[in-house]
Amino acid sequence: MSLDVFMKNNKNLVDQKLQEYLPNKSEYPTAIHEAMHYSVFAGGKRLRPLLTLAAGDLFGANKKTILPFACAIELIHTYSLIHDDLPALDNDDLRRGKSTNHVVFGEDIAILAGDALLNYAFELMTSKGVENFTDARTPLWAISEVAKASGTKGMIGGQVVDIKSEKNADIDLETVSYIHKHKTGALFTASIRIGAILSQASQADLEKLTTYAQKLGLAFQVVDDILDIEGDEQKLGKTVGKDDDNEKATYPKIMGLKESHEYASRLHHEALTAISDYGEEANILRELANKIVNREK
Amino acid sequence: MSLDVFMKNNKNLVDQKLQEYLPNKSEYPTAIHEAMHYSVFAGGKRLRPLLTLAAGDLFGANKKTILPFACAIELIHTYSLIHDDLPALDNDDLRRGKSTNHVVFGEDIAILAGDALLNYAFELMTSKGVENFTDARTPLWAISEVAKASGTKGMIGGQVVDIKSEKNADIDLETVSYIHKHKTGALFTASIRIGAILSQASQADLEKLTTYAQKLGLAFQVVDDILDIEGDEQKLGKTVGKDDDNEKATYPKIMGLKESHEYASRLHHEALTAISDYGEEANILRELANKIVNREK
Repeated sequence: MSLDVFMKNNKNLVDQKLQEYLPNKSEYPTAIHEAMHYSVFAGGKRLRPLLTLAAGDLFGANKKTILPFACAIELIHTYSLIHDDLPALDNDDLRRGKSTNHVVFGEDIAILAGDALLNYAFELMTSKGVENFTDARTPLWAISEVAKASGTKGMIGGQVVDIKSEKNADIDLETVSYIHKHKTGALFTASIRIGAILSQASQADLEKLTTYAQKLGLAFQVVDDILDIEGDEQKLGKTVGKDDDNEKATYPKIMGLKESHEYASRLHHEALTAISDYGEEANILRELANKIVNREK
Repeated sequence: MSLDVFMKNNKNLVDQKLQEYLPNKSEYPTAIHEAMHYSVFAGGKRLRPLLTLAAGDLFGANKKTILPFACAIELIHTYSLIHDDLPALDNDDLRRGKSTNHVVFGEDIAILAGDALLNYAFELMTSKGVENFTDARTPLWAISEVAKASGTKGMIGGQVVDIKSEKNADIDLETVSYIHKHKTGALFTASIRIGAILSQASQADLEKLTTYAQKLGLAFQVVDDILDIEGDEQKLGKTVGKDDDNEKATYPKIMGLKESHEYASRLHHEALTAISDYGEEANILRELANKIVNREK
């Protein structure tokens, strides 16, 4: 299967399942359900769920067992964007070319919609996520991985250091690296790890996929920083140069633009090396890595 | 055992376990861990964990198996208070006589500290919570109950309707009842239900405890509304009459003060009736109900 077909089919499947799993927009109280739907269906590429499904495919998993988790990861990603965009945090009015949640629904509902998506991710995993497992320890392990990746030693930790590093002219590479490994990298890595865990992959396979995920997650973020400088406003659907205005820590700012490109290439190569033992069955993961590193938005 | 001894011993145990379970304040990034500790140890009565432990005791549960869940419920309760107090929601500067989280740590960290406590509740339940169970389906059921109770069909749903009903002079009893059954009642009920579920209580026992919990949760809130009018500012540690200033929906406003007292009494009686089949072993639950209804703050 070509990557394009894989992405198209699985993105459609994820979109369809997200519609199915989420409480209907018309359910009382409608304000919160409308706000949740608005951001979940605001044009996300579903990259994290696609990675979960690709990792599952590598080990021959039944998609039905993986989908609630793949969707839960997307809900957590979406909640983090809603809260990141709030006036008290990044104060962004625009995301993927659309008004952010608090602009449309108000700050109060946006805060609660973020809370609700985080909460619902766990509701989904602990209900629909366990139906297809005879031993409940497997889904529990996956849920625990997701919780750790989203917490203060993962994504939230990255958000906190990011906030605390703003307006700090002396920010060093170690701090930038911490921010990215945690803010983006942790959930990125968990997306891939749970695909392997839920497929009962061996410890050796899990380690390979973890290295692939960590390298790719970091590459994703380095490219994001580069695109923020080089990108075209229209393609990205957000204000280009915003990171710099905010005095956010970025790789190009610390190590230079040329060196950032080289770093992204090295990480890309290391991600591919980590899964080089696999044959054709890992081609989707390889092509996903290529696409992520070579993307233009 | 007297209720006082039960409450003192178990509150100490919960406080000690919360210290043990939470990431240390000095762990990087410290800002978020300090903010989490600040609100978790801001003088909460630990009512919900005490209810979980009391329900567990009724069915002879091992406390060790219950404590991670009892503490997780308290973390979720705490997160909901932090977010409720935010300027975009209730805009409260004072809670239990202390400055609220965002006053001390800033809105950005307060939002993330709330997120982190919600997230950590699930991390705790899916890690420490499952260690003592041979069949992981039991803790998974309890986690799923907690997630449902905290979500948009539970606590968050109540918060949303509460927000949307402010400044609405025509609010009816049905709406007030919805708000309280969801905003406070859902997590209150889950606290008691998971104590029974984790103790492998029978379906009949679970139903009795559920009725007890629902009646008591509602009584708790009716009394809260009454105290807001009658209470003494110092005793409550918050601004008395604040609900009225905010034009919040309360029972006394809809049904009158005398009728609210009668309603609380009736709910109290119904809570006790629901557990009347039990002998002395349910005395702690009975005395807890008496204490909750007759409290002065």
